[in-house]
Amino acid sequence: MKTHTDYLFFETAARQEFIRITDEVARIVTASGVTDGLVLVSAMHITAAVYVNDWEDGLIHDFQAWLETLAPAGLPYRHHQTVEDNADAHLKRTLMGHQVTLPITKGRLDLGPWEQVFYAEFDGQRRKRVVVKVMGI
Amino acid sequence: MKTHTDYLFFETAARQEFIRITDEVARIVTASGVTDGLVLVSAMHITAAVYVNDWEDGLIHDFQAWLETLAPAGLPYRHHQTVEDNADAHLKRTLMGHQVTLPITKGRLDLGPWEQVFYAEFDGQRRKRVVVKVMGI
Amino acid sequence: MKTHTDYLFFETAARQEFIRITDEVARIVTASGVTDGLVLVSAMHITAAVYVNDWEDGLIHDFQAWLETLAPAGLPYRHHQTVEDNADAHLKRTLMGHQVTLPITKGRLDLGPWEQVFYAEFDGQRRKRVVVKVMGI
Repeated sequence: MKTHTDYLFFETAARQEFIRITDEVARIVTASGVTDGLVLVSAMHITAAVYVNDWEDGLIHDFQAWLETLAPAGLPYRHHQTVEDNADAHLKRTLMGHQVTLPITKGRLDLGPWEQVFYAEFDGQRRKRVVVKVMGI
Repeated sequence: MKTHTDYLFFETAARQEFIRITDEVARIVTASGVTDGLVLVSAMHITAAVYVNDWEDGLIHDFQAWLETLAPAGLPYRHHQTVEDNADAHLKRTLMGHQVTLPITKGRLDLGPWEQVFYAEFDGQRRKRVVVKVMGI
Repeated sequence: MKTHTDYLFFETAARQEFIRITDEVARIVTASGVTDGLVLVSAMHITAAVYVNDWEDGLIHDFQAWLETLAPAGLPYRHHQTVEDNADAHLKRTLMGHQVTLPITKGRLDLGPWEQVFYAEFDGQRRKRVVVKVMGI
C-alpha cells in the first residue's frame, strides 16, 4: 500500500472566493503513483470548505447568494465578542462541507461527468491550506 | 490490501425520490472480500445525495418538506440562465451531503442500530450512478 | 497495512450537548500504531453529528442558535406520528454532518491550527456511540 501527502495553498484577493481545484488534486494523484484507492481533500482552516459540484458561474453565484440567506454576515453573533468577526464564515463552510473523499480507479480520479472539486473561501485574504492525502495501491 | 470498485445505477420515475441502498452496499462489501476497512459510497452526479439516516417514511417526508423550505424550487436562480432548471437540486444535495464513508469490521458494515444508507435523487428521470469503493484487508 | 477500530461512548446529561473529542481520537490513532493514513470518526446514531470547527464557546452557542432557526424543535413533523419527538435532531445532525475523515501524517492527526473535532448530541440522555476506524501504514 502507498500513501502520499501534499498541500494546496490559497491566499485569495477577496474575502469570499470559490476556486476550482480538480486539476490540482488530479496532479497530486498522478504524482502519488496510486492507481486504485482514495484521496481525501480537506480544508485545514475552519472558515473554508471543499465541495464537489458544477463548474458553472451562475450556479456558483446561486450558492453564494443562498449561503448569505441561510447564514448571513453582520448578525450579532456571540463569536464576535472575541476578536473575531467571521462567525458567518464558520456557518457557511459547515453548509458546504469541509472535505470530500474521491475514488481513484485505473490511475485517475473516478468522477462523474459534471463533478468538479472546489475550494470555497469564506474568510480569505490570508494564507490557508488544504491537505490532500492519497492512499491505495 | 484489497480494493474493489462497483457502481449502483438509478433511473427514478419521479424527479425527486429517496431510495434505501444499505443492502446493495452490503452486498458489494461482501463481494469485495474485505473484512476490515472502509467503503466510500458517493453520488457521481451533482444533483443527487448519499446520506445516512432513519428508514422511516414520516421522517423522509419531513426531510423533503424541510429541503423545500431551505432550498426552494422555482426561484429565479442565475443557473437557469443556462439551459438548466435544477439549481434547487444542487442546493438540496449539498444540504444532504454527497457521500458517506462507512467502516467495515469483521466482514460487515459497522453501522449503528438505526443507520441506513440512502440515495436521494433531486433531478431524476435519467440514468445516474453511485460509485462504491471498498478498501481494506 | 494496518487497521484499528475503537468506539467512543457518550451519555450526555442534557438533550443537546457539544463535546470536544480531538484528544480521544488522537489517543486512538496513537494506539493504532498507524503513522500515515486516514481515520474515520463517525456517529453511529442518527441524531448526533461529528464535525470539525472552532473550540470557542461563543461560536458553539452561535451554531446551536443557528441550528434552532434552520431546523426548529416543536414543529408538527410527520416523524412524530410514530413514538418519536426528535425529528429536529435528525435535521440538525444533517446540517452539521455525521462524520469526518482525518489525515494521519508522521504519526499524528494532520490538522490545521484551529481544527478541533466535536461530537454534537441532539437527542441525548441515552448511551450513544461513535466509531473510530484507523487505516494506514
